Amino acid sequence: MIFLDNASTTRVLEGVDDVVKYYNSIDYFNPSASYALANEIANKIREAKRVILKSLNGSGKLIFTGSATESNNTVLLGQLNKRFKKVLVSRGEHSSISHTIQTIKNAGFEVEEIPLTHEGIVDLDAFKNLMSTEVGLVSVIHVSNETGAINPIKQMVQIAKQINPNVLFHSDGVQAFLKIPVNLDDLGVDFYTISGHKVHAPKGIAGLYIRKNLKPYLLGGGQQDGLRGGTENVSGIMALKYVVEKTNLEEKLAYVKKLRDELFHLLKSTKGITINSSIDNSPYVVSLTLDGVNGETMVHALELNGILVSTGSACSSKSSGNNTLSAMGLDSKSIRGNLRVSFDIENTIEDVRIFVDKLIENYNKLTVRKFG
Amino acid sequence: MIFLDNASTTRVLEGVDDVVKYYNSIDYFNPSASYALANEIANKIREAKRVILKSLNGSGKLIFTGSATESNNTVLLGQLNKRFKKVLVSRGEHSSISHTIQTIKNAGFEVEEIPLTHEGIVDLDAFKNLMSTEVGLVSVIHVSNETGAINPIKQMVQIAKQINPNVLFHSDGVQAFLKIPVNLDDLGVDFYTISGHKVHAPKGIAGLYIRKNLKPYLLGGGQQDGLRGGTENVSGIMALKYVVEKTNLEEKLAYVKKLRDELFHLLKSTKGITINSSIDNSPYVVSLTLDGVNGETMVHALELNGILVSTGSACSSKSSGNNTLSAMGLDSKSIRGNLRVSFDIENTIEDVRIFVDKLIENYNKLTVRKFG
Repeated sequence: MIFLDNASTTRVLEGVDDVVKYYNSIDYFNPSASYALANEIANKIREAKRVILKSLNGSGKLIFTGSATESNNTVLLGQLNKRFKKVLVSRGEHSSISHTIQTIKNAGFEVEEIPLTHEGIVDLDAFKNLMSTEVGLVSVIHVSNETGAINPIKQMVQIAKQINPNVLFHSDGVQAFLKIPVNLDDLGVDFYTISGHKVHAPKGIAGLYIRKNLKPYLLGGGQQDGLRGGTENVSGIMALKYVVEKTNLEEKLAYVKKLRDELFHLLKSTKGITINSSIDNSPYVVSLTLDGVNGETMVHALELNGILVSTGSACSSKSSGNNTLSAMGLDSKSIRGNLRVSFDIENTIEDVRIFVDKLIENYNKLTVRKFG
Repeated sequence: MIFLDNASTTRVLEGVDDVVKYYNSIDYFNPSASYALANEIANKIREAKRVILKSLNGSGKLIFTGSATESNNTVLLGQLNKRFKKVLVSRGEHSSISHTIQTIKNAGFEVEEIPLTHEGIVDLDAFKNLMSTEVGLVSVIHVSNETGAINPIKQMVQIAKQINPNVLFHSDGVQAFLKIPVNLDDLGVDFYTISGHKVHAPKGIAGLYIRKNLKPYLLGGGQQDGLRGGTENVSGIMALKYVVEKTNLEEKLAYVKKLRDELFHLLKSTKGITINSSIDNSPYVVSLTLDGVNGETMVHALELNGILVSTGSACSSKSSGNNTLSAMGLDSKSIRGNLRVSFDIENTIEDVRIFVDKLIENYNKLTVRKFG
């Protein structure tokens, strides 16, 4: 099997199973209990936070959550405040952001969407025009889960804070964390979402970076300094810390770039297949358009060849359409022909070659059947 | 080590590690992806829901969440509706309910607390008086996490629905699920919270039973029929299903009753130690009061003997005071002297005897030092 859907989820890193087993079976105490064995767990959680914050160069705080969706909702629904009127989100957000828009509006706030360029990043001029002192919260995805486009978060934070120094700026960093270098202090964001299962930690563990303050969204027994209620998912937290310590980001990034470059090279002059991702994008995610072939059909054709890819993000597959591609100006026909290929360190150059061979083979069969 | 703090968390059941490992390392696909290997995971999640619902005799739906706190917040904060004015919660709730009260009030609703009897269950007469057509949501813990008292949920649902047929009735069943028989159709509740890590599944997996409808609290990619966004914690879900299938509830309950009866027997005539839990309570949780000795001091004394117990719930240890005991009429001195002992199938009669020996030994030392 060739797994080219690493943006949807990943296999846990070697060694994670042992970490998880240890904290589920041996050192399983509730970190909120008052005996020493429990205090040790609480200390280990604090240490995990330090390790992860350091990897992100973030001088704020970190809370652990159950999913990136929870992290995103904690900001978008939990930080609304009557001191401001308006919320801005980009048109290229993950569904856990875009699906909060109606709820934010129901709560009495205005929401405006920042358009994207044809390259799939936010349109900075449009952002400048939309930004005002009425805007209290901005949320922009760091790396697009559909195309790998990298948004100019640092510039956007500067623009936003210049116009309204009190604005809260959130970025969903799920496809950036442990994939490309991230420097939170440099970016200047107030909140940043990370997830475990996209980077070889288990599902069910995620995090939210908090530069200064957070109004908690899950209220409980005062865990995590009162910022997020609920018994901590200790084994997930320790697995995430383990992954952060074991990952050599530069090495992984350079390796994945080679895979992406090979894909670009092999597809350069293939008739009917367009690449929607630029060379400046994160190399982990590549969006393709198949002219005249439904992406869903191709997913199933490739599946028969033992190759797993997707049509857009798994998280949007249950929703209709594709916001990001549509915001980039792709028409509905092109969106139907969308295929997302997402790499990770487990893939090989040989995988890429087999994928391209099979993609072209299937494409030719499917178009001949259709047009021939 | 003798672990008598099973109400705070538990070691995972034998076999859970293998289940978790399998779904993290081998069958790790995102259930929302569209290829067959992912669809199989989605089917397994649906099957897990069926198994768990069947064990609870619930003919409604189940969603998986990241913690009981999330489940409780999903009801208490997520189901507020302008069609009603008032919310009732008992004075014996877990902090993930009681700590939502201020937020509910801030949202413009009235909240009233239902008093408890000296036995630690809700006062039904007081409940009848508080219940009205203005009350749209009621939340009452099924089994107290502090005393093991079992609330008359079925009767309360009947009273509530008689007065307002549209009322939504929620019960936090964390200390009941897989511990005492629970029949959700018979109870008639609209929502019911369950948790994994209290019953030998991992931390980070919990559930919420929904009789009819739910307004989702975490909004994302349409997972779980649109009722709870976020990639499902597949390994946690499959571990919880495994635990439900492996647990022989009747056998466990009968066994734990023997442990509790032995404790009651041994402490019957011990001077200075009062039992706050009645024989009708769930046998898994026993609340004690030590006259003249701080519960916290005793926890640490017993810890030196290799015995782990707690002062009230771990989840309230970070908060101040103890709502439940105070609502039962215990004075602040008695609450300071509180010790919670919580059993599970891994404990033995010998554990109970050693615990009582050491408890009395330490109690005598500490009172002599204090008064002698």
